[in-house]
Amino acid sequence: MHEPEFEPRDPDYRNRVFVGFARQKFMKLLGARVISVAPGAVEIDLALRPELEQQHGFAHAGVAWTIADNAAGFASQSLISADEGILTVELKINLLAPAKGERLIARAKVIRAGQRLTVARSDVYTAADGKETHVATALGTFMAIDRKSVV
Amino acid sequence: MHEPEFEPRDPDYRNRVFVGFARQKFMKLLGARVISVAPGAVEIDLALRPELEQQHGFAHAGVAWTIADNAAGFASQSLISADEGILTVELKINLLAPAKGERLIARAKVIRAGQRLTVARSDVYTAADGKETHVATALGTFMAIDRKSVV
Amino acid sequence: MHEPEFEPRDPDYRNRVFVGFARQKFMKLLGARVISVAPGAVEIDLALRPELEQQHGFAHAGVAWTIADNAAGFASQSLISADEGILTVELKINLLAPAKGERLIARAKVIRAGQRLTVARSDVYTAADGKETHVATALGTFMAIDRKSVV
Amino acid sequence: MHEPEFEPRDPDYRNRVFVGFARQKFMKLLGARVISVAPGAVEIDLALRPELEQQHGFAHAGVAWTIADNAAGFASQSLISADEGILTVELKINLLAPAKGERLIARAKVIRAGQRLTVARSDVYTAADGKETHVATALGTFMAIDRKSVV
Repeated sequence: MHEPEFEPRDPDYRNRVFVGFARQKFMKLLGARVISVAPGAVEIDLALRPELEQQHGFAHAGVAWTIADNAAGFASQSLISADEGILTVELKINLLAPAKGERLIARAKVIRAGQRLTVARSDVYTAADGKETHVATALGTFMAIDRKSVV
Repeated sequence: MHEPEFEPRDPDYRNRVFVGFARQKFMKLLGARVISVAPGAVEIDLALRPELEQQHGFAHAGVAWTIADNAAGFASQSLISADEGILTVELKINLLAPAKGERLIARAKVIRAGQRLTVARSDVYTAADGKETHVATALGTFMAIDRKSVV
Repeated sequence: MHEPEFEPRDPDYRNRVFVGFARQKFMKLLGARVISVAPGAVEIDLALRPELEQQHGFAHAGVAWTIADNAAGFASQSLISADEGILTVELKINLLAPAKGERLIARAKVIRAGQRLTVARSDVYTAADGKETHVATALGTFMAIDRKSVV
Repeated sequence: MHEPEFEPRDPDYRNRVFVGFARQKFMKLLGARVISVAPGAVEIDLALRPELEQQHGFAHAGVAWTIADNAAGFASQSLISADEGILTVELKINLLAPAKGERLIARAKVIRAGQRLTVARSDVYTAADGKETHVATALGTFMAIDRKSVV
């Protein structure tokens, strides 16, 4: 499948992703940051640490879901107009392998940007010793709404 | 639909849920606790606080996904044998309303417990001023595996 | 979880479900029919027959998905206004048991009816010798759109 | 994301896909056929016709789900051993555009092949006048089981 290419409606889309992300206090608690933004594509990562683990010493799947969701949500946001915000409608994640390593990375791409609804996928990897492992894949729906109704 | 009733295979199932939960460091970071355990049914809650919020002042959907997953995973664990552990295969969440309130509660029930795979649903509510709001519903698959292979 | 109760916006909602269903030629090919309609709740069934089977002699999961989707879609349609139609945004199904029997029945209920988006679940059963078996459970999102844009 | 490459365990994997598909009576009812098989990748198509439509003259989403499921299931089957069969555990589909055209095509790829569980995605396209439109994307889990237990 060839990837679709997107033209952002808001020339300031890049800045808006960073501003929106910086306002998410939960991202600070997780230690997550945005590492790249392109039209319809966002990458987020975080350093793995004991506080993010489940009982077997792997990163909790909730950490993977959270950055998969945020990457896909901001990838969707990169394509909407300046007066709109993005809500997650639903997101399903399939876990592929235990998440163990130095960093956790989510890479999201918009599959289809509609008038109201955007569909995006997000793939999550661990990185350790310069090698990446695909640990999860997610597929979800995001809705553009009037910003005034969420602020 | 009438709810199925389950007979736990491990008489110590209740204790195992609390022990497994206590080992999840990410639950401590979120401030989550188990509030009830029955065969095939688990409830988890946490106090909402600014560190768990996204940019609009609501709880991040990742917090809801995480406790929905944990409640469903431990509900699945309550039905397996003592030498098995539970892994999340996949979990999809649909967000129904913004999560704002004093507490966030996930209530999970097993729908079908198979030899290897368990299907469970999890509903997430906010509570404020003694009133609950249904904010998310999740449906997922969990796999029983030999405990030695995950420890 | 107590079930939400809904007030239909279109007093003719019942008739609209039957009319919409009758126009779906694929339902005729499957031999499906609507067996009950209430506000936010629809039941559909069909007689199982060899033409609907996969290679092991069970009903193909696509038949279960199709009536689960239709039941949930029409349950959603029962709550919208007369000038709107319903589209499926996404629907996930978890298969619980092989589908073998005389009839296949889907029972759907709306979980939340929003301004634009409705979330509904659908459970699928086989019936044989007066006994029902729960064979699948589905959770999905449906969108109300201006009828003129789909006709 | 670079695509994983797979080595089939059963040298006769190609033939097994065609044989399994030919036994699905529901595929005959839909008029579907396998158009390509590679390790971890299967394509299925069908000619669109009025019998497969919903009320607005588009192909019913159930037809898209069914061939998305079959393509992903047979892509999973192409990687298992000769004494195993494949069951769908769950499959979620997101609908991207109305399905209207001459043919409907599902292209599936395995994302991860585990010991028991395989995760695969499936993309569905309509083709008309030599042009393709992406109409749906699906993500699901498939389980390998002992063939004797399903025959």
